[in-house]
Amino acid sequence: MPYGARNKINAVVTSVKSGDVMSLAKFDIERPCSMASVLTTESVEELGLKAGDRVTLVVKAVHVLPVKE
Amino acid sequence: MPYGARNKINAVVTSVKSGDVMSLAKFDIERPCSMASVLTTESVEELGLKAGDRVTLVVKAVHVLPVKE
Amino acid sequence: MPYGARNKINAVVTSVKSGDVMSLAKFDIERPCSMASVLTTESVEELGLKAGDRVTLVVKAVHVLPVKE
Amino acid sequence: MPYGARNKINAVVTSVKSGDVMSLAKFDIERPCSMASVLTTESVEELGLKAGDRVTLVVKAVHVLPVKE
Amino acid sequence: MPYGARNKINAVVTSVKSGDVMSLAKFDIERPCSMASVLTTESVEELGLKAGDRVTLVVKAVHVLPVKE
Amino acid sequence: MPYGARNKINAVVTSVKSGDVMSLAKFDIERPCSMASVLTTESVEELGLKAGDRVTLVVKAVHVLPVKE
Repeated sequence: MPYGARNKINAVVTSVKSGDVMSLAKFDIERPCSMASVLTTESVEELGLKAGDRVTLVVKAVHVLPVKE
Repeated sequence: MPYGARNKINAVVTSVKSGDVMSLAKFDIERPCSMASVLTTESVEELGLKAGDRVTLVVKAVHVLPVKE
Repeated sequence: MPYGARNKINAVVTSVKSGDVMSLAKFDIERPCSMASVLTTESVEELGLKAGDRVTLVVKAVHVLPVKE
Repeated sequence: MPYGARNKINAVVTSVKSGDVMSLAKFDIERPCSMASVLTTESVEELGLKAGDRVTLVVKAVHVLPVKE
Repeated sequence: MPYGARNKINAVVTSVKSGDVMSLAKFDIERPCSMASVLTTESVEELGLKAGDRVTLVVKAVHVLPVKE
Repeated sequence: MPYGARNKINAVVTSVKSGDVMSLAKFDIERPCSMASVLTTESVEELGLKAGDRVTLVVKAVHVLPVKE
């Protein structure tokens, strides 16, 4: 796993919609996986974030980098 | 789903490590889910990205926003 | 405020321009508000950043996530 | 305004907390201002985003770039 | 080049400073290279950006992903 | 250098392709330069990242901010 990033998720492409400059690709994640977030310690304290909490992980699609295997 | 983002993933916090300014939180994604990526159409063409391709989705942890339910 | 982010700004949509894949939305921030930035301590020292300094906060529009209230 | 970014907000530094590698700076925005977001057209349609809507603009602090005037 | 990103730059690590949660790594780019930016068409028009213009490319370090060869 | 970012690279625009909402600009970096990355200390340790290592720096084009000189 040579990537300097915490999130490396196996996925299968389900669709690609290409526009003039930008494209939107979609993926299925078939197996349970783990993710990680870096946030300010202030945000952790404000949320009271701790093991066992249920959260929604929101990620803008522009931040997702597909790498072909 | 009121978020203007394509990726909204249900997760459970498994650990939180707090540093002086930044913290690292980890999550389990228990159910199969979908993700989306916006990339340049040039990158799509260079990769030859199409439905059925296997990829690794790489996301730096700083781009993952936890929202408490 | 359940979001694990330092910047949560109340705004009103003023326009939406939709393209083939991406759209550009604009907003008015009507009330004085606060913002926060995480940067390297090296950058803070290089800038000599301290309370009272006047700055311009530059944010690429792709990093702004609208959440509907 | 020489920056290739839609958001350029005048602000005053209110505090700087420096950690070992990363620092957290806070700012006051004293005057009403405008902001912009780029999101997928799919997200716009899913949210039904249109002029007049009230939203919260969420921005992780790592995406905010202070430029000294 | 299997990465769905426009910028893939060969570099050599010159230093790594590790903090409690985050680290700062530095690199030398030894050979001339090319880069790319995606920005709004509005920003292109506001800047009057065209071939031959001299610019400074500003990138926050959190957006740079090292991949080991 | 008034920018609160580690990467400030001199470049010349070589092309601009404008789409309906987003544009793709390309640049030549003519002189050797340095770059920096902020990543988790966990990633540094997983990669075994140290001075002298050869890496590819991957940066999505949406994270590159051109500033006109």
